[in-house]
Amino acid sequence: MTVPARITVITLGAHDLPALRSFYEALGWELVIPGDEFCGFATRGAVLTIFPRAELAKDAHTTEAPPNQGIAMSIAINVDEREQVDEAIAGIRAAGGTILKEPEDAFWGGRSAYWADPENNVWEVAWAPPDNAASQAVRAASGL
Amino acid sequence: MTVPARITVITLGAHDLPALRSFYEALGWELVIPGDEFCGFATRGAVLTIFPRAELAKDAHTTEAPPNQGIAMSIAINVDEREQVDEAIAGIRAAGGTILKEPEDAFWGGRSAYWADPENNVWEVAWAPPDNAASQAVRAASGL
Repeated sequence: MTVPARITVITLGAHDLPALRSFYEALGWELVIPGDEFCGFATRGAVLTIFPRAELAKDAHTTEAPPNQGIAMSIAINVDEREQVDEAIAGIRAAGGTILKEPEDAFWGGRSAYWADPENNVWEVAWAPPDNAASQAVRAASGL
Repeated sequence: MTVPARITVITLGAHDLPALRSFYEALGWELVIPGDEFCGFATRGAVLTIFPRAELAKDAHTTEAPPNQGIAMSIAINVDEREQVDEAIAGIRAAGGTILKEPEDAFWGGRSAYWADPENNVWEVAWAPPDNAASQAVRAASGL
């Protein structure tokens, strides 16, 4: 395939890399690429990395976006059991994340919640029934 | 783990979902969740889905971000061979993507390029040597 259909790394363009790194470490995530200039965590699905926003803009030959405000996209954590949505949100709250939407059952049969990290990158935590099309796509994508 | 270290889905908040969906279809990506209200592609690593930005904001209990301008984060496609960076960029250009940075060898030993979709979501295509820490994290994350 000319353009491989892959999402392998998400790089957050940080204003304060060490502070953002500390937040994700407080979630209990393992830092496997340490550093103040670039860092990365051991995740499943795609890898989470953080790079200063100014450096990311230079590397990409474009300009820095203004500080995040509202939602442009979301990064999801799919969990295996319905109750893990609530457990994850409790852990995110304890680490200092901002809960945008408390866990709620959704019309499509699953359960989900939204939160933001200290630089307003927006994440979702979601559980979907195993026969849901998104669940099936997630399993095919990540091997989870 | 209370907060599973996972990135399983990236949802782009679209201004014009059908147009953005057409662009990703033009890359040759397989649409496995069809629809004008929500759609998703069969990808490896994390799944790519598209949702109207106004609906995403409602669902997340937050506000819509203004149209994308510059770079806030990047979504990467890691490829298996150095020359696939150039092949992918040729395919992205043919589909109407905006090439921000042509393929270049990087100081860290890999090769990468950046591009934007029609709504200025910024992506990277990267190849990194197998012993690179990011390559190792990608393999652990996605099973690729």
